[in-house]
Amino acid sequence: MRELELIERLEEVLAPPPGAAPNLVRWLGDDASVVRARGYAVTSVDTVVDGVHFRSDQLTPAEIGHRALGSALSDLAAMGARPGEAYLALALPPGIELEDAVGLAAGARELADACGVTLAGGDVSASSVLTVAVTVVGWSDDPAALVGRDGARPGDLVVVTGSLGAAGAALALLEGRARLDEPLATALHLRYARPQPRLDAGLALSSLGATAMIDVSDGLATDARHLARRSGVRIELDLAELPLAPGVAEVARQLEVDPQVLAATAGEDYELCACIPEGARAAVESAWPRVGDTALTWIGRVVHDPTRPAGVQFAGAAGELSGYEHSS
Amino acid sequence: MRELELIERLEEVLAPPPGAAPNLVRWLGDDASVVRARGYAVTSVDTVVDGVHFRSDQLTPAEIGHRALGSALSDLAAMGARPGEAYLALALPPGIELEDAVGLAAGARELADACGVTLAGGDVSASSVLTVAVTVVGWSDDPAALVGRDGARPGDLVVVTGSLGAAGAALALLEGRARLDEPLATALHLRYARPQPRLDAGLALSSLGATAMIDVSDGLATDARHLARRSGVRIELDLAELPLAPGVAEVARQLEVDPQVLAATAGEDYELCACIPEGARAAVESAWPRVGDTALTWIGRVVHDPTRPAGVQFAGAAGELSGYEHSS
Repeated sequence: MRELELIERLEEVLAPPPGAAPNLVRWLGDDASVVRARGYAVTSVDTVVDGVHFRSDQLTPAEIGHRALGSALSDLAAMGARPGEAYLALALPPGIELEDAVGLAAGARELADACGVTLAGGDVSASSVLTVAVTVVGWSDDPAALVGRDGARPGDLVVVTGSLGAAGAALALLEGRARLDEPLATALHLRYARPQPRLDAGLALSSLGATAMIDVSDGLATDARHLARRSGVRIELDLAELPLAPGVAEVARQLEVDPQVLAATAGEDYELCACIPEGARAAVESAWPRVGDTALTWIGRVVHDPTRPAGVQFAGAAGELSGYEHSS
Repeated sequence: MRELELIERLEEVLAPPPGAAPNLVRWLGDDASVVRARGYAVTSVDTVVDGVHFRSDQLTPAEIGHRALGSALSDLAAMGARPGEAYLALALPPGIELEDAVGLAAGARELADACGVTLAGGDVSASSVLTVAVTVVGWSDDPAALVGRDGARPGDLVVVTGSLGAAGAALALLEGRARLDEPLATALHLRYARPQPRLDAGLALSSLGATAMIDVSDGLATDARHLARRSGVRIELDLAELPLAPGVAEVARQLEVDPQVLAATAGEDYELCACIPEGARAAVESAWPRVGDTALTWIGRVVHDPTRPAGVQFAGAAGELSGYEHSS
């Protein structure tokens, strides 16, 4: 693969259309990109590696690119930040086809366009293993409006967006551990391969008074525990209330696991889990139908229990839930 | 290696001292970092991979961390941007010792402190090969004061900071292709292992009217060609004028290459090459003794030659110089 040709093709794929990125002053081709700033920069970096975070024999290049950017943008969603730019650093293994490298960038580009994100720069280098490092930057005028993990208070209610278990079930299908008919199988695969960062939901939950928020990347049980520990509170979730993605129950049956437990422990759904003061519940419910097509489910509450350490308890579960083990 | 212990140790090493990072609103432990912005953000991403950009059996962990951050900051220097924050994404192979991972972060931390850069966030993940992805952000109130690669004009003079060939010579020593006595050997090794980004020089050259600038990462011949092509001009450099780092001539003799050619083609010196209007030469020379301890050498000029394509010609060289081949 000729490096110059690759860089030219990548520039074609990544270049924003004229007028589409008014804040972008300098782009690829210089030592750095230059972007007009606003207020506060909200920045997250995320690296995914073939064989660790995905398998290049299970996903198309475009899916790999989409997924790498999607998981990074999900961190901005979880802060309630408005996304601005993404920077894509590709480390490509020797044998990769030019079309695959370009396809990877094209997958990221498609998601960036859908989310109003500017691909403002990047880097191509060599590696022994396909690695995609994504830096995403969001902007906020008021840092107090951003939602951390540390603000949950006893009495808050806990919500989750969308549905859970889809990515875990999709991975079981990809690995041949379960089978499902169409169109469910494809719908689940898309949830795994092309996660949609809940950017609108994150902004809405932030403006409606969310006290703490996190995206569900490691599995709800683990991510809710992060919230609980950082906030120094105890969170009680109702296992039976967790919203299952269509097809998850059937896959769980084939895997011989409790579907609700799979939903609580499988990761990479990139939904948001937020804590909301009880007094804001009505406002959230009346605002909600207007926030995209993401559902919202009340799944528990933050409790005051000085006798027990910060953490998560699932009502309806036998003991503490630990992470669902992906086989990859 | 326990992941939680690693993350705790990394947080200790990376945490800015109280009061040292007044623009940092949220740091590690949330989904993203929050930083007070100013004017324009100047952003560069840079990935280095064991076996491709360095060899972990040739450098200490601290040197690897320093070098990864140094090469990223060098891109900000080449824009004339004031550095602000760096984000460090470590992808660690299975067998790495906790102390080595922490040492890597400590090496980056030490350079960050020396440069007034805040380590504002990061990410740790697994990989089959040690990979360090660094995102650096600088800030500028006036994007017109930033220096791209595209502004060189016929008549401009060309300068280079510091001295050349050091990193290439050091690599030859590391690989046993040449030998040198102390203290020269160690001095050369430090130039390779702990490059100092020329941030003050970049800011000074920008304010003194540099029309185009690049950092010497691929070798002067290649990097000057980038400047020439992006600016659509022809650059004539005088091979005999290139400033050699002490010890480079002796290493070149052992390698049986022309020392000036080695200086022109070996990469990773992270010096700056800038184009300066002839009328600004006196101002640059009178300002220069005040800009840190980096020397400045006039090495050529931008010429008008409509009969030849944009590119670089070395006076004193036989034909066009191509990149010096590193053996790694």
